[in-house]
Amino acid sequence: MPERIDVPLAIIAADAPPRMKPSNYPAPFAATMDGRVKRPLGDLFGVQSFGANHVTLPAGAVSALFHRHAVQDEFIYVLSGEIVLITDTAETLLRAGMCAGFPHDGTAHQLVNRSGALATYLEVGDRQPGDSVSYPRGDLVAARATDGWIFQHKDGTPY
Amino acid sequence: MPERIDVPLAIIAADAPPRMKPSNYPAPFAATMDGRVKRPLGDLFGVQSFGANHVTLPAGAVSALFHRHAVQDEFIYVLSGEIVLITDTAETLLRAGMCAGFPHDGTAHQLVNRSGALATYLEVGDRQPGDSVSYPRGDLVAARATDGWIFQHKDGTPY
Repeated sequence: MPERIDVPLAIIAADAPPRMKPSNYPAPFAATMDGRVKRPLGDLFGVQSFGANHVTLPAGAVSALFHRHAVQDEFIYVLSGEIVLITDTAETLLRAGMCAGFPHDGTAHQLVNRSGALATYLEVGDRQPGDSVSYPRGDLVAARATDGWIFQHKDGTPY
Repeated sequence: MPERIDVPLAIIAADAPPRMKPSNYPAPFAATMDGRVKRPLGDLFGVQSFGANHVTLPAGAVSALFHRHAVQDEFIYVLSGEIVLITDTAETLLRAGMCAGFPHDGTAHQLVNRSGALATYLEVGDRQPGDSVSYPRGDLVAARATDGWIFQHKDGTPY
């Protein structure tokens, strides 16, 4: 067993350190993520093959741009509050205790907090290589790079 | 986008159908999982690269034998109740809102409900190929097969 230093046995998820960079999106999209706070959880324990984040969405905040992944599977579980799940075909109100999964190449999706109160959820996404993301409602495409994302306009010009 | 039939947009996790086979362990280990109920969640949405389950542990029940994976990373988040996390070095009381991660080849671990009340948690584990599991406290080793696990005694004889 490799030695692991400074890895906690367990933590209170809502107390985990927030990710310092609030959004990877280029301008002007990054600003639309204002208020969203992601707290990486799995990384704190050395989990590598998937990411597990605690996400806080204040009233009016959104999870991400309306998007779908080409490779990554995603799963979310609502911990508190009310969140609207927007997909290609429907809008669905999610309450605490509800969950949803988004297989790669499935419906595009986005979570929006249209309530007047805070909402929190867990999100899980695998880290398989070669991922890309399409945004049906924005002039944006993203491809996975070694240490982040490369964003382009849909005509291929860079941001 | 491939057509996906009968995939729900979202569900109440605690209402998901329980896994019919209560445990994959051979006798006599399977009986030690009595009471534990796993409800696969990600599978209901077509999520493939990792499993996400809702797990119910009644008073006295355990999550699994004390074990570690050679390949699979795991993550758990406690939804309700109190659960004792047993690792190589410590016993830690987990309450709702706490989480823990178990990287492959890390500490062996097991969750035990020593309270008098029901506890529930989410568990996530990747599905990378070639996994095997060691059980430091039992005469058991497991290797991943195409559609399940192959269990042997530590001397290599089959169960």
